Amino acid sequence: MTQNNVLVAQSGGPTVAINSSLAGVIAATVESKKYDICYGALNGVTGILDERYLNLSQIVEQDSTIIDQIKSTPAMYLGSCRHKLPNFDDDSHPYEQIFSQFEKLQISAFFYIGGNDSMDTVLKLSDYAKKINSNIRIIGIPKTIDNDLCMTDHTPGFGSAAKYVATSILEISHDTYIYKVKSVTIVEIMGRDAGWLTASSALARNKYSMAPHLIYLPEVAFDKEQFIEDVKKQLKTTNNVIVAVSEGIRDKDGNYISAGETAEDTFGHAQLSGAGKTLEYLVKEQIGVKVRSVEINVLQRCASHIASKTDLDEAFVQGKKAVEFASNGVTAAMVVIKRLSNDPYTVEYDYAVIKNIANEAKSVPVEWINKEGNNITKELFNYLLPLIQGEVSIKYSNGLPTYMDVSHLHKRSEK
Amino acid sequence: MTQNNVLVAQSGGPTVAINSSLAGVIAATVESKKYDICYGALNGVTGILDERYLNLSQIVEQDSTIIDQIKSTPAMYLGSCRHKLPNFDDDSHPYEQIFSQFEKLQISAFFYIGGNDSMDTVLKLSDYAKKINSNIRIIGIPKTIDNDLCMTDHTPGFGSAAKYVATSILEISHDTYIYKVKSVTIVEIMGRDAGWLTASSALARNKYSMAPHLIYLPEVAFDKEQFIEDVKKQLKTTNNVIVAVSEGIRDKDGNYISAGETAEDTFGHAQLSGAGKTLEYLVKEQIGVKVRSVEINVLQRCASHIASKTDLDEAFVQGKKAVEFASNGVTAAMVVIKRLSNDPYTVEYDYAVIKNIANEAKSVPVEWINKEGNNITKELFNYLLPLIQGEVSIKYSNGLPTYMDVSHLHKRSEK
Repeated sequence: MTQNNVLVAQSGGPTVAINSSLAGVIAATVESKKYDICYGALNGVTGILDERYLNLSQIVEQDSTIIDQIKSTPAMYLGSCRHKLPNFDDDSHPYEQIFSQFEKLQISAFFYIGGNDSMDTVLKLSDYAKKINSNIRIIGIPKTIDNDLCMTDHTPGFGSAAKYVATSILEISHDTYIYKVKSVTIVEIMGRDAGWLTASSALARNKYSMAPHLIYLPEVAFDKEQFIEDVKKQLKTTNNVIVAVSEGIRDKDGNYISAGETAEDTFGHAQLSGAGKTLEYLVKEQIGVKVRSVEINVLQRCASHIASKTDLDEAFVQGKKAVEFASNGVTAAMVVIKRLSNDPYTVEYDYAVIKNIANEAKSVPVEWINKEGNNITKELFNYLLPLIQGEVSIKYSNGLPTYMDVSHLHKRSEK
Repeated sequence: MTQNNVLVAQSGGPTVAINSSLAGVIAATVESKKYDICYGALNGVTGILDERYLNLSQIVEQDSTIIDQIKSTPAMYLGSCRHKLPNFDDDSHPYEQIFSQFEKLQISAFFYIGGNDSMDTVLKLSDYAKKINSNIRIIGIPKTIDNDLCMTDHTPGFGSAAKYVATSILEISHDTYIYKVKSVTIVEIMGRDAGWLTASSALARNKYSMAPHLIYLPEVAFDKEQFIEDVKKQLKTTNNVIVAVSEGIRDKDGNYISAGETAEDTFGHAQLSGAGKTLEYLVKEQIGVKVRSVEINVLQRCASHIASKTDLDEAFVQGKKAVEFASNGVTAAMVVIKRLSNDPYTVEYDYAVIKNIANEAKSVPVEWINKEGNNITKELFNYLLPLIQGEVSIKYSNGLPTYMDVSHLHKRSEK
């Protein structure tokens, strides 16, 4: 019997919402009259090349609560990869393998959930499908905590990371306000080329706390002398200054701000300190007050226990929309979200042609950064605020959040 | 009219539960038939020396929900200090000042919430009270995420920090399991001299994940060569190895494990990298797999949004018990908790003589560490598990947890 199946995979860096989009794809396939089985490839496109699959329809059939469990589990239930397909004009072999797998599994639509690099894969597979006159629908579903995908108002995963960052800044501010001595706390936030996540630290501000008092994004050339002046000025009115800084700040010549140039570790390696650590030393040297740097690190992209409900809900809908678009004949596209209004916050879903998205990146517009380059504008604040709204009810067991069993990923032996 | 007032203050490093003990002191004073006003001194004993107080009874009278709000706010509502009183035989001046303030405010009991150093202050004030035949009750209420206070089964603040650490390790494990390449992730956890908090990372283990696969506490001399052997061995059966390591690990000669010796930053300073960063470089050099280090940093002591209900409830009761003990005539003591049973978890409250507690520290017993020195025993796991149980319902507003306004701390200009 001929089947009409779909295949889904996940790729790139983790977010808290990427499994919610996966859950949306599974849910829509199960509900669909058009499609039969929803397969998942493990570890992105490499799972297709290696023929490693899960029958997701079957898993959900056995326990329908699994869709909700997947929705609130961090990182990728299907695993990830960082695998760039060659140009098919140079090497068509992997494409032949992938499309032969599509045929074998009777796949009529393939969904790839990921960021910029994954959209490059969507573009290449779409182009190859066109070249061989394949009717298989290829659709990208966005995710990235960096919020730097073009053609969409924002990306799934960003709102939850922003909520984590703002909550952490709020809690760190309470932690620093307790001492009656001048201090500077520098918090380094992810986003090497785009400052969206660092900007979201501003959401921590409230009627009793203006932390972070200074914000530095990678979109503005970083000047160490101006930074020291900014901090000194702030210390005149604020005992405990909190600075939010992107990991990707660079000087006017485009060089990353890091202490790596002269530092060596015990093995003689150049030791690349992060931006936060570098500014910590700078403040210690130039101002001499108590100073600490905090790198929030991977926690900002995997803390499902404080996900944004808005983010997870939108990620789920985008997964469902991908299936709907595919069944309507859309291909070579990515699901996008359009904001209709900030207040009340309303959005609608659409798709955009993949070639306008792949390998492009969206920076924070300079008009949303103040002219001193050390804060964000009210417009950016208003853009960010709706994205962190709502809390997700997580089940706890034995004092810890309960997430989906992912032993199918890490217990598997290396091929 | 003669009043019978109490004074409370907070000192040392922040925890998530120290305000819950404060809430307990306020609640017990308000309910008490014996005491009139509960005053709070700002920034520990320095607030007494500077005469900076809040009338906490009045604040609660105006809004009774404030007790619950204080209970779930991180760090110190009254602010903190790191102020060591001199021996009164050398300099009795601050003691005279403090006891004159007690007299002025008609204080009959003083409660100091803090860790080892704060208990030194409790001891000194108790001894001075005895010397001058003062009838004022002086009682310590414990707190520290390090869990290293003697004479008590565990300390308020520890359980919440342990819950945060275990949750973070669980979420980081999901973050690392997604890639089909060998990797090592080193998570550095607070606790310079005691390994309790690092040990609590083991609570993250479940049926699908044994992370952290290796645990190193400061109680065991750290051997770099053995560490590399341990990691290599683990990598044979586990793709993504997660290591939990205390910031305070030292070699057999007592030297901290850090890359500080030869590293210099751009200013020519010796750059003291943490234990995690040092082990990251070691793995990179000696094994060559993908490696990352994560320093959880201050978030483990201020993340009220994922506090342990058991911890906050016990901290509250210990605040109330302090007032009860004082009203029964107890002085020169610290409130302690005694565990009667692990399963079901049952405790009772008592007090212990302060001179057996101040300036002492409680390490993890060596019999609770495995003989290889890279894991904990089942006994330690069973000791830890009850302390992270239960979740605290936090109110959210605009997407963020709502905590108490602490502008009385940081808007105040420097004296």
